[in-house]
Amino acid sequence: MNAPCLIGLDWGTSSLRAYLMGDDGHVLEQRAMPRGILRVPGGDFAATFAEVTEGWHEAVPGGLPQLACGMIGSAQGWREVPYVRSPADVATLSAGLANVLTASGSRLHIVPGVRHDGPVPSVLRGEETQIVGALVLRPSLAERALLVLPGTHSKWVEVRDGAIGRFETYMAGELFALLREHSILGRPARDAGAEARTGEPGSAFERGVDTVRDSGRAGVMARLFSARSLVLTGALAAVESLDYLSGMLIGEELRSALTAYEVHPLPAVTLIADPLLCRLYRRAFARFDLPEPEVVEDAASMGLWHIACTAGLVDAVSVTDTAGSTFA
Amino acid sequence: MNAPCLIGLDWGTSSLRAYLMGDDGHVLEQRAMPRGILRVPGGDFAATFAEVTEGWHEAVPGGLPQLACGMIGSAQGWREVPYVRSPADVATLSAGLANVLTASGSRLHIVPGVRHDGPVPSVLRGEETQIVGALVLRPSLAERALLVLPGTHSKWVEVRDGAIGRFETYMAGELFALLREHSILGRPARDAGAEARTGEPGSAFERGVDTVRDSGRAGVMARLFSARSLVLTGALAAVESLDYLSGMLIGEELRSALTAYEVHPLPAVTLIADPLLCRLYRRAFARFDLPEPEVVEDAASMGLWHIACTAGLVDAVSVTDTAGSTFA
Repeated sequence: MNAPCLIGLDWGTSSLRAYLMGDDGHVLEQRAMPRGILRVPGGDFAATFAEVTEGWHEAVPGGLPQLACGMIGSAQGWREVPYVRSPADVATLSAGLANVLTASGSRLHIVPGVRHDGPVPSVLRGEETQIVGALVLRPSLAERALLVLPGTHSKWVEVRDGAIGRFETYMAGELFALLREHSILGRPARDAGAEARTGEPGSAFERGVDTVRDSGRAGVMARLFSARSLVLTGALAAVESLDYLSGMLIGEELRSALTAYEVHPLPAVTLIADPLLCRLYRRAFARFDLPEPEVVEDAASMGLWHIACTAGLVDAVSVTDTAGSTFA
Repeated sequence: MNAPCLIGLDWGTSSLRAYLMGDDGHVLEQRAMPRGILRVPGGDFAATFAEVTEGWHEAVPGGLPQLACGMIGSAQGWREVPYVRSPADVATLSAGLANVLTASGSRLHIVPGVRHDGPVPSVLRGEETQIVGALVLRPSLAERALLVLPGTHSKWVEVRDGAIGRFETYMAGELFALLREHSILGRPARDAGAEARTGEPGSAFERGVDTVRDSGRAGVMARLFSARSLVLTGALAAVESLDYLSGMLIGEELRSALTAYEVHPLPAVTLIADPLLCRLYRRAFARFDLPEPEVVEDAASMGLWHIACTAGLVDAVSVTDTAGSTFA
């Protein structure tokens, strides 16, 4: 039990996580480096790969199978892996693996992203693996679910019969960072020295959510400037204006998504994110009188494990057993 | 006729325009400097004022009356002039003038901005003077009109009975600049060297407008990422992606404003802007099957003149005569 069986990597734009996994998918050792694909010195992915997995290959004679997901498979990554089309389940993803040769001569396999052609095409890369993991960790989600993966580019993903279906992208995270750092809306907080504030936002967050919720069909663009005008008219403290702005942007994500996902009843929403983001989104959901979403905190390693099993990279006990014995 | 009667200044965030006006409000001489309030060396407004009006004061024994509008009356300007509340007509604005002492000992009067308390408060500063001017130049607008002043912060202003009523702010211009320069959406165009392209956008602009128009209640936030995904999937050229983005943002302004201004029928829309922005907005209006808006190109000097007359800073023939004789 728990001999090393797989090296998994979640290699995104800004960060890199590596997992050494045992024969039931359990994480034996985990490493994190600030070596997202845009921060790899000299673009030398092979050297960074060798560094983050140092000492792991020697654990088993003949080496370990290796699987990565995320932006490492994009045009800016190690090798561009073509998107597979939705609906896409774990078999689709496994069939779409590509690989690169590492410095030691071994193969690193890479999970493809997914493309959905709705009114406009949308794409994701990395989230597909988290979703696969979430469906293993919460088997009840597989039949029908709405998964929300907040972040720089939030994804709202419909799952049907174990496959990624329709999804939408909201740029709430990137927009918040841009507006905070570069726009006139961030200026009062910058002047007040509040932009470096970390931790949980105050009640101005709820006020921002409510503002956008109550805008109806007009939406956030008709309200964004209020992050400034409320401060100018003395109705909002400068130090609270970023919390208010954050609330408006997350509120818009909910307002817009609820109109786009006109399924009745709305399937229960499950959040896949870190604890701080999950708390923020739960607070926003509450202002929309929506049921409290369930949370799956870190599903990437389980997704990598399940895809590796399905692709035959590792010989594993059945995934059901795996989930049952390790995570249930 | 046409002896100098008034010095007017349109003093905004990034630029400064000065007008020497004759006794019928006609502009005898005009000067422009890149000396918006954030670009005044050392914050020495008095020195910049003396520079931009050099030689004008000597034209008349005893000097000329002087009136400025715009961000020069904000907290970051020469003196903060309190907002007057909507509804605000030329009499309200004239009654709200404040003034500062110039280096020569004369008084520079400053037009107040306007505050409207809707679901959230909104404010404008500078646009009130353009609107006053537009109502002189197009007297038919005074009874009831919807004026759109596109720009960094676009204003949609309802006019009733000659007064500024309800208005909304859209940050289309600032958002476009932010996304072009700092976001992942601007990257393809930046990589393609297309971000410095000037002039009229191509047909990708219409495509962006249509994308948001067809989003219905969801709005632009559910579509913004398509400026990237369309490029990634080969459906949009990188060099066209900024035109597409511009179309989406202006399209959202229309989509959102049309839901906010649920007046039926929508009053005829009049644009107050420079020619390039007017053409862009007319193209967007056409995609929404709206009547072609009328255009008033530069109304600031006439607004300054009319406010100065109403406040008694200049002795003038009646404004109706003025408009009739000079501009009709």
